[in-house]
Amino acid sequence: MLDLTFCLDPAASIPLYQQLYESLAGQIRSGRLHCGDRLPGKRSLAGQLAVAVNTVDTAYQMLVAEGYLEARPKSGFFVLEYVGGPSQPPQAPLPPLELPPEPAPRFDLSTGAVDTALFPFRTWGRIQKELLYAGPELLCHGHRQGDGELRRELAVYLRAYRGVACDPGQIVVGAGVEYLLGLLAQLLRGPGCTAAVENPGYDRPRTILENNGVPCRSVEIDGSGLSPAGLEESGASLCYVTPSHHFPTGVTMPVGRRAQLLRWAAAQPGRYILEDDYDAEFRFDMRPLPSLQGMAGPGGPVVYLCTFSKSLAPSIRIACMVLPGPLLERYRAAFGSYANTVSRFEQQTLRRFLAEGYFTRHLARMRGAYKGRMERLVRELEAAFGRERIRLQGRHTGLHLLLTLLDGPGEAAMEASAFAAGVRLRGLGGYYMEQAERCPANTVVLGYASLRDEEIPALAAALRRAWLGSAGGTA
Amino acid sequence: MLDLTFCLDPAASIPLYQQLYESLAGQIRSGRLHCGDRLPGKRSLAGQLAVAVNTVDTAYQMLVAEGYLEARPKSGFFVLEYVGGPSQPPQAPLPPLELPPEPAPRFDLSTGAVDTALFPFRTWGRIQKELLYAGPELLCHGHRQGDGELRRELAVYLRAYRGVACDPGQIVVGAGVEYLLGLLAQLLRGPGCTAAVENPGYDRPRTILENNGVPCRSVEIDGSGLSPAGLEESGASLCYVTPSHHFPTGVTMPVGRRAQLLRWAAAQPGRYILEDDYDAEFRFDMRPLPSLQGMAGPGGPVVYLCTFSKSLAPSIRIACMVLPGPLLERYRAAFGSYANTVSRFEQQTLRRFLAEGYFTRHLARMRGAYKGRMERLVRELEAAFGRERIRLQGRHTGLHLLLTLLDGPGEAAMEASAFAAGVRLRGLGGYYMEQAERCPANTVVLGYASLRDEEIPALAAALRRAWLGSAGGTA
Repeated sequence: MLDLTFCLDPAASIPLYQQLYESLAGQIRSGRLHCGDRLPGKRSLAGQLAVAVNTVDTAYQMLVAEGYLEARPKSGFFVLEYVGGPSQPPQAPLPPLELPPEPAPRFDLSTGAVDTALFPFRTWGRIQKELLYAGPELLCHGHRQGDGELRRELAVYLRAYRGVACDPGQIVVGAGVEYLLGLLAQLLRGPGCTAAVENPGYDRPRTILENNGVPCRSVEIDGSGLSPAGLEESGASLCYVTPSHHFPTGVTMPVGRRAQLLRWAAAQPGRYILEDDYDAEFRFDMRPLPSLQGMAGPGGPVVYLCTFSKSLAPSIRIACMVLPGPLLERYRAAFGSYANTVSRFEQQTLRRFLAEGYFTRHLARMRGAYKGRMERLVRELEAAFGRERIRLQGRHTGLHLLLTLLDGPGEAAMEASAFAAGVRLRGLGGYYMEQAERCPANTVVLGYASLRDEEIPALAAALRRAWLGSAGGTA
Repeated sequence: MLDLTFCLDPAASIPLYQQLYESLAGQIRSGRLHCGDRLPGKRSLAGQLAVAVNTVDTAYQMLVAEGYLEARPKSGFFVLEYVGGPSQPPQAPLPPLELPPEPAPRFDLSTGAVDTALFPFRTWGRIQKELLYAGPELLCHGHRQGDGELRRELAVYLRAYRGVACDPGQIVVGAGVEYLLGLLAQLLRGPGCTAAVENPGYDRPRTILENNGVPCRSVEIDGSGLSPAGLEESGASLCYVTPSHHFPTGVTMPVGRRAQLLRWAAAQPGRYILEDDYDAEFRFDMRPLPSLQGMAGPGGPVVYLCTFSKSLAPSIRIACMVLPGPLLERYRAAFGSYANTVSRFEQQTLRRFLAEGYFTRHLARMRGAYKGRMERLVRELEAAFGRERIRLQGRHTGLHLLLTLLDGPGEAAMEASAFAAGVRLRGLGGYYMEQAERCPANTVVLGYASLRDEEIPALAAALRRAWLGSAGGTA
């Protein structure tokens, strides 16, 4: 029996037909209206509720479309059988929904940031605008590996500046190195497939590889980078490395060590090296060193990965990988139907940014700014602590330094007292996945990319106060 | 012994120091220069090669940085031991690199396209430009699940227009439904986990689930959508469905069937329904029907997925999913450290587009245009073939129709003759992963989104010529 006591509220933000639909659907679900019941005619109900006939009609049509009612020609609307869902639909409680934002420290020396003031707003914005009005074809799906014109520019750039040996057809563009690593893991995993990762090192690759079904073993980093003996012992068939600039120690892998890695890969079929060239653009003393991939050649066992997170901005999600031939075939078989994950407007903006020479000029400008900042940081730290109290490593490349405080109070105490003084930084031990006891003592990682130059003296003074208990002055 | 017979070419695009570096590195790798050999002094070599001292210095520093040379203070540069890579580095041949582009047909009735002329270029471009200049914080990493302001707008929209019951904290934004489905598969896979997929249906979800380690079983679609008996028999613990508008048959799942699916999910812990609401915005006869997720509630066993590929553009890669509580916790544990895959500029452009009311106006405009196009296509096809020769299904929602040609020559012949007449379309049988013999005969899928209205009569005439052998006129 239809209950007409409910109220329709013409002032509510929910339209009247929706309110009526919900009331009627609720009465059917609750069993108040039964299978076979005939609903009032549309005019009659509209009159009773003082709403337009159209309102009733729309609600009835929705109920028909959803399967609550059946419309029988010339006789009206009848309730269909409703066998309900679970009487108590399982309602698991929600976890705390949003984590409260951390308060921003006065000085942020974490390593993921860049100097946003260096972003080429004007050029990027102009190209973006021109592309939006250039024609509608950029709204359609593009090539699944990434737009062909972008991949051609990337191949030219990677060959000239990173010594990468590749054809545009080997390049896959994707929304971040993490996404691309996930695809690689899916391609390469299988019985017996394990990956060696660097210890200390960046923990994200390990998380991604393991989430995608590739177990990881950590292999120690010595003064030349990943240890070949450790790699051999690990039994791994994949090896994730950052040879240009090991994260976070800053070691550049010498050519002899690179050759050893290539020999390791050549010793058994199916071995691959995943070379993450995450910040090699920022080599201050010379042109960046050629990639390991270039040494191996376009068909060699190296997958080259790089990102534009540091050279443009972390929020513009463009990365790419260069696949050797056999993997390219497997990639196309497995993922050939996947849509590309990067907006074509941003792909094409980057394409023109590269093709028109803006990118290399932008890099030169960033490199100059970052080099100046690093040198100033070194000077101010040496002045604040005295050269004999600290050791600084990693001044040739990248966007972070390692600082060791001789006779310091231990890494944890250094982190904590820096934090209390308004400086967010992380100890080197935090990057050890295993064997943290091998970590050099009293050593912290200083990411300087997002510092403002003029605040560097205050930062150095804050660290000195935090760690030595008194302000300023050389020791 | 150093070979000085090589040529440095000042006119080449490769800088001189790079040319010199490559020659010297090559001589060390080839064994012409031996471990312990002393290189000529910088001035002396510069004189012999007629280049600047700086050029030699840069090349030497690169060789030192790479580990080819050692610089001994006050005595010069000495060759280090070089134990080469594999003598014949494995060089697998590259597969054919770029597939030749397919020639564009005169009429493209495939289902992935949209009408790019409807894209709101002006508003989108203006918001984008304002955001670029609004401040540098959009260059930094945002929230890993997607910008909070965007998720708040999405929650409001999904609640109001799709009946989705959710808090912004349950939403995860990502670069396409495919990417999000991949994450879901990684979260949910495990021993005994299999997924039911629709047959006929969209093949991509199956590919993604299987690539991510979730085996799939296909379950038949009847007149009300996915068969609950088939689902039960499949032994699956996950169920991928398109209840609002089954792809490609166009069936809308009635409420009773939805309740059956929810009962299936409630019957065992760990069962989940993945509801892909890929084109529900385009319901022509009424407001889109509420989602299955809304029926289950925010903690129920449904993951809701939707994309902006059809409502904005396929090349703007924004999709989202709404996770029930238990999955949200697992998501954060597994993927909490992953960077979001969507550019923050595009996230924020969409956020303002939603918040300022443009999106619902844009949808209304698209819905009007697509409805008019669908109706015109129906009229022209009925005029060209006669109402008794064809049956058209799927006129209430979505961007495609099913056409059945009574007494037709078979689906394959229809596809081929249409293609010869300049019309790209796909037979319904192509969407059957199994049991293709159950496919209704002579039925093809007509995606009309990217047709131009004025070409519809010519398209109908082309199909008539292709399938009936004579042009125009009712039969």
